[in-house]
Amino acid sequence: MPVPGPGYSITVRVEAPPSTTAAGDLTSAIGRAGGVITAFDVVESHADRIVVDITCNALSADHANDLAEVLGTLPGVRVRKISDRTFLVHLGGKIEVNSRVALNNRDDLSRAYTPGVARVCTAIAENPEDARRLTIKRNAVAVVTDGSAVLGLGNIGPEAALPVMEGKAALFKKFAGVNAWPVCLDTQDTEEIIRAVELIAPVYGGINLEDIAAPRCFEIEARLREKLNIPVFHDDQHGTAIVVLGALRNALRVVNKDIADCRIVVCGVGAAGSAIIRLLQHKKPADIIAVDIDGIVHTGRGDTDPNLQSIAAGTNKDGRTGTLSDAVREADVFIGVSAPNLLTADDVATMNTDSIVFALANPDPEIDPLEAQKHATIVATGRSDYPNQINNVLAFPGVFRGLLDAHAHKITDEMMIAASNAIADVVDGDRLNASFIVPSVFDSAVAPAVAEAVKKAAIASKAGDPEPNGGGSSMPWSMADDVDY
Amino acid sequence: MPVPGPGYSITVRVEAPPSTTAAGDLTSAIGRAGGVITAFDVVESHADRIVVDITCNALSADHANDLAEVLGTLPGVRVRKISDRTFLVHLGGKIEVNSRVALNNRDDLSRAYTPGVARVCTAIAENPEDARRLTIKRNAVAVVTDGSAVLGLGNIGPEAALPVMEGKAALFKKFAGVNAWPVCLDTQDTEEIIRAVELIAPVYGGINLEDIAAPRCFEIEARLREKLNIPVFHDDQHGTAIVVLGALRNALRVVNKDIADCRIVVCGVGAAGSAIIRLLQHKKPADIIAVDIDGIVHTGRGDTDPNLQSIAAGTNKDGRTGTLSDAVREADVFIGVSAPNLLTADDVATMNTDSIVFALANPDPEIDPLEAQKHATIVATGRSDYPNQINNVLAFPGVFRGLLDAHAHKITDEMMIAASNAIADVVDGDRLNASFIVPSVFDSAVAPAVAEAVKKAAIASKAGDPEPNGGGSSMPWSMADDVDY
Repeated sequence: MPVPGPGYSITVRVEAPPSTTAAGDLTSAIGRAGGVITAFDVVESHADRIVVDITCNALSADHANDLAEVLGTLPGVRVRKISDRTFLVHLGGKIEVNSRVALNNRDDLSRAYTPGVARVCTAIAENPEDARRLTIKRNAVAVVTDGSAVLGLGNIGPEAALPVMEGKAALFKKFAGVNAWPVCLDTQDTEEIIRAVELIAPVYGGINLEDIAAPRCFEIEARLREKLNIPVFHDDQHGTAIVVLGALRNALRVVNKDIADCRIVVCGVGAAGSAIIRLLQHKKPADIIAVDIDGIVHTGRGDTDPNLQSIAAGTNKDGRTGTLSDAVREADVFIGVSAPNLLTADDVATMNTDSIVFALANPDPEIDPLEAQKHATIVATGRSDYPNQINNVLAFPGVFRGLLDAHAHKITDEMMIAASNAIADVVDGDRLNASFIVPSVFDSAVAPAVAEAVKKAAIASKAGDPEPNGGGSSMPWSMADDVDY
Repeated sequence: MPVPGPGYSITVRVEAPPSTTAAGDLTSAIGRAGGVITAFDVVESHADRIVVDITCNALSADHANDLAEVLGTLPGVRVRKISDRTFLVHLGGKIEVNSRVALNNRDDLSRAYTPGVARVCTAIAENPEDARRLTIKRNAVAVVTDGSAVLGLGNIGPEAALPVMEGKAALFKKFAGVNAWPVCLDTQDTEEIIRAVELIAPVYGGINLEDIAAPRCFEIEARLREKLNIPVFHDDQHGTAIVVLGALRNALRVVNKDIADCRIVVCGVGAAGSAIIRLLQHKKPADIIAVDIDGIVHTGRGDTDPNLQSIAAGTNKDGRTGTLSDAVREADVFIGVSAPNLLTADDVATMNTDSIVFALANPDPEIDPLEAQKHATIVATGRSDYPNQINNVLAFPGVFRGLLDAHAHKITDEMMIAASNAIADVVDGDRLNASFIVPSVFDSAVAPAVAEAVKKAAIASKAGDPEPNGGGSSMPWSMADDVDY
């Protein structure tokens, strides 16, 4: 049952009589109507009235409206203004562009802009790789969307997707010091999206694709990886896969199983499910069974979609057929990235002992986690109000920090596995248990650990510049190691 | 003759003997070699040696190298490291993206990101115009280039153009609080540039085209103005034209002439010259004579370029022909946006009394300003080392501030003229004289004055949202006026 949360938080400014019972009347009215008061501030006090800001959490936008109405029905109370705190946070945008250099006098201007800047331009024209040292390309990532698969909202278009991309950019900076900029494209044509990203790429050291619908997202990613000499990462695929693999690593530690002995069911073969399956294959589980809306994926189904064909070819060794219930029977792990309420407690009961259930559909999981816990040893969801939240924020900031620091030209599966191991290993043995298989999203140790692992893997695989801060530069003299971002 | 400037400033770290004459030997060596010392910092002192950072301005990159070499030839002196301060300023890029919202706990996250952000997305999907209130579109400008005409460097491509675009973005923030982001496109195809800008437009409240070669820039600008519902401004054209018109307004005040009586020669019919001519036409001077590499532009020349045909049709009432010298004879105003050393002092001598010469070719003007001053009453250049610097920084920050605040859907000539008048009027009667016809680029009164003038003109012309902070919004309740950027 949902509880009032800060996602629906309002501040209601009311005028009330200056009676001794006024405050109590107001707060108890909110309580009776199901709101949760988080602040009560008297902003004015007069002989004949007081003015109060009441801040409270509601269940929904409609409920927030109801709460304000209830206050207005109290004797002598007048509602002056209602502010929605979520909207207030977004007013004017959530990110900004700032100068990192002083521009206070002519000397500053002549170094950062004309005429001095001309020498820096010339140096880059002579050696384009110097753009990774002398420009924002050093530390900038494009967050690219076409607005076609935004959160659970679906195809809402580029303008409406912008608040999500801004939030993502804010998280990039907060957790990993990366400068991320939203690129919301006014097209949903695969070729146009590919070409647009190619055209804007000179400014960026990496591309983060976001909320682009499957199967379009697969082709866009694959083609851009071929065309660009900077890493291309689709967070809905790879970010999710990295965190899931990290969580699975720790879950298997808790139940003391070897992945080589595990049969893993992946329910949902969209962007996330496909990427999870592909990354899991590197870990060589006993088998992976993919399930979609038509049941178990197998080579005999005659699927025409290239992504499904490739999944069918690489999974389901025994050629199983049937429903999701058939798939999970005697499986060790269920990973759902599909839709609400597809799995029952009875299904979980048929799994092997010490079963692991990741029910990641958002906001409503494949199975209520309390139901799953009746039979599973470990349960994880995508929600913040249950233990073991699988959240991409654990992956993408550190991944790009590592890629940028390695001056990486591409991202490989090895780097992603390194990232997932690093996330898992932040949870040390003392803290690891069935309710704590992934670190908190606010754990400041995560992004640096991920970054270090990715950077190391990038340099080891020679996908990065082997000497990211030296070698081959046309920059004058010996200053390339002075970078500070 | 050029003097050592901060555009070529180096810091040389040397080890020297701890003798009483060491400092004097070092500084006089730099002086003899033509450098100008701006700082002398002892960073270490030992019994047997001192370590000193000598910061000095040079004439050129080669000269900077020479200065360091000279130090190395002094007895007992060893050069340890040379740093180029211009390059140091650019390391890692000159701008960054920061979060404007707190992200410290779960409540913050649930308002700025999921799940709260979904309501904001939905509001924008229902009313796309709300993107100008609830996202960075409120205050964001794209600085778009194809790298084809960068400073005086020519066609150096998108990566090498990036330091200029970053500098521009830094200036946008410094002078007008605008969030500007570089868009350096990896194409020089007119159709691709137009389409790319169209595709990225949802994120921005305005487009600033920059350093795109003529004649391509004219078509790109015209077509984008048709396609987009946000203002499109080509700084090389309109920024220059606005500042030139402002300077001319004040210059005519100084010499007490009415523009209706003036014949104005515009030398150079590229991006800047064409825009200056078009904006000047609104001021109805007696005549405008355009001059290009083939001499005076007239309808009889048989030009095939549409831009030149349109310029020929709208200027040169008497059908003059001939050279630049012919054009300036008995003219009142010369405006050069062409190439170095095209105009002689003898040419200026043939102009009407109280002549005005704007020699804006950069870095070397059409005529040495000292030569021009022999016969002209007012001389202006694009350089910072002479009086009356015509600098676009006076225009673009305030212009976009005004456009964004008006929620403008387009920019008109009326708004640009309002901006040019505002720049001129910042110089009040007490300060106005032949050596001070434009305010300093660091005058903090300029951008707000320009912004106010542009906003007023935009709202008057109904090109902006008539109620920029209200009306027609699907935002909940009454918070739209709380914007703070």
